[in-house]
Amino acid sequence: MTGPFDVLAIGNAIVDIIAHAEEDFLVTEKIIKGAMNLIDADRAEHLYSVMGPATEQSGGSAGNTAAGIASFGGRTAYFGKVSRDHLGEIYRHDMRAIGVHFETEPLAGEPPTARSMIFVTPDGERSMNTYLGSCVELGPEDIDEAVVAASAITYFEGYLWDPPRAKEAIRKAADVAHAHGRRMAMTLSDPFCVDRYRAEFLDLMRSGTVDIVFANEHEAKALYQTGVLEEAINAIRADCQIAAVTRSEKGSLTVTREETHNIDAIAIDKLVDSTGAGDLYAAGFLYGLTHGRPLAECARIGGLAASEVIQQIGPRPHAVLSDVLAQSGI
Amino acid sequence: MTGPFDVLAIGNAIVDIIAHAEEDFLVTEKIIKGAMNLIDADRAEHLYSVMGPATEQSGGSAGNTAAGIASFGGRTAYFGKVSRDHLGEIYRHDMRAIGVHFETEPLAGEPPTARSMIFVTPDGERSMNTYLGSCVELGPEDIDEAVVAASAITYFEGYLWDPPRAKEAIRKAADVAHAHGRRMAMTLSDPFCVDRYRAEFLDLMRSGTVDIVFANEHEAKALYQTGVLEEAINAIRADCQIAAVTRSEKGSLTVTREETHNIDAIAIDKLVDSTGAGDLYAAGFLYGLTHGRPLAECARIGGLAASEVIQQIGPRPHAVLSDVLAQSGI
Repeated sequence: MTGPFDVLAIGNAIVDIIAHAEEDFLVTEKIIKGAMNLIDADRAEHLYSVMGPATEQSGGSAGNTAAGIASFGGRTAYFGKVSRDHLGEIYRHDMRAIGVHFETEPLAGEPPTARSMIFVTPDGERSMNTYLGSCVELGPEDIDEAVVAASAITYFEGYLWDPPRAKEAIRKAADVAHAHGRRMAMTLSDPFCVDRYRAEFLDLMRSGTVDIVFANEHEAKALYQTGVLEEAINAIRADCQIAAVTRSEKGSLTVTREETHNIDAIAIDKLVDSTGAGDLYAAGFLYGLTHGRPLAECARIGGLAASEVIQQIGPRPHAVLSDVLAQSGI
Repeated sequence: MTGPFDVLAIGNAIVDIIAHAEEDFLVTEKIIKGAMNLIDADRAEHLYSVMGPATEQSGGSAGNTAAGIASFGGRTAYFGKVSRDHLGEIYRHDMRAIGVHFETEPLAGEPPTARSMIFVTPDGERSMNTYLGSCVELGPEDIDEAVVAASAITYFEGYLWDPPRAKEAIRKAADVAHAHGRRMAMTLSDPFCVDRYRAEFLDLMRSGTVDIVFANEHEAKALYQTGVLEEAINAIRADCQIAAVTRSEKGSLTVTREETHNIDAIAIDKLVDSTGAGDLYAAGFLYGLTHGRPLAECARIGGLAASEVIQQIGPRPHAVLSDVLAQSGI
């Protein structure tokens, strides 16, 4: 433990396998476009057999956020469960190489390290197919209390409600964090994930287990079962301290009980691959928040990081974000 | 066997692990810039421990060429030795997924599948550090004579002179190819590789074992131990049927005993990563040659493929090269 940390991120530790695909392919293979589709080992084998040539890169939503914060120069830790196999070694390498403190004990055997087959369609949208593998073993015993206590913000992904025991880990982390005057943040992850765990997510917010919530507009609407963004915004404002709602090319909204900030998106040359956009928005926002920036600037830094990652293939920015931020003048 | 094939490529089957690095890093780690540095298992472990976050993509010089030809729509086969491990599975997947016939029997155990740690400096140059792993086991028994006989051109990389038994495999392939009226092509691979095997490479050319030679200007000069490109060009013209000499942003020269074609490079927006430039030039050239294009057009198609791959990270083009060619008007 080499804290203090600005942010501790907790999530499903997943290696991404990324390939291009046509729209037709998604239809034929019954993949829900733009979503995270959970798959089992047999389906993973099938999809890999019909997948085009691919690129492998460490991913996982909160893992991408952790890597992004570290790239900005933030002090970052990560909890996530890989296995003792080659993909797990790659994952561990990539985290540590960017300076993220990552000491979660890997699984000794099966199941193998998680992987997500991501199909990027010509419009730049990504459709994920995730085999959770070793992530199903993340539990409360993986919560290093000293790291939680030493982290200004503990951030986790809603996707952690899919594996069986991770929610216990998060509740334990929240208790420790709040006992030390720290804050908890989460992302709603995916509209279908919100559908699966709506009541529990609302309870996390209303019980004060979570203080800061990240969502895109589809997830925010799904949470409150409304088609009207304003309704969702008004509701989420009452349910947490800070909510950051991303709207793709329309920018983002940041709301607290007293404030509303409407921030434009940064113009880009070409949308190459939207993988990691929300994760990097959260990275920029949390970096700003833990470095004394006002909320509107946090949202701008989030948008900056997102604009970087969607102009490349893969979820972790090739650029050094501290340089990008310095050049941006934000 | 589902031939006939336009091109059979034979090479070291290697997964690339690609990361950015500063110039200083190459100096500190004593990596020869722009070259292929051969490393052992201990050095591989050390370099990985000091490497930044990385992206994994199937590579290998001749493997990249095979993937490029397949992306143009050419009928392609590949011989190369992976192991029965996860990297080997990725390699096999990527080859087959793009339509390359790849049936070389993998090694059952150690050593593991080869990997090359590639450091890309801010100028876009790549410096490779290759642990040959299972490639050292490629031998004459891996030459499927029916595939060689069914391939218009058998292409191999000079790098195959590094592992101990691959040269026997190539001599066997050349005998079969020429017995069936086919042609043999090679790339000189790397100036240091040329220094290691100069006499043998010249013998391959002068004995007629090889008909077509690919080289960049540094390799061509190294072959004839001259600092003057014209001298190297005049010498290589006498030593093979066709020589294609690439000159980075200065374009390429194609020479036969009767003809000389000087082709300009295609202007690019930004050099991102030069990994695969020469391999993809060979892919475009060989696709053209096996599809009845005149030599000057072959060189243009080569330049087109190279310009694609250097504007992205990794050695295998994300774009579909048959589309790129159709849009180019060549």
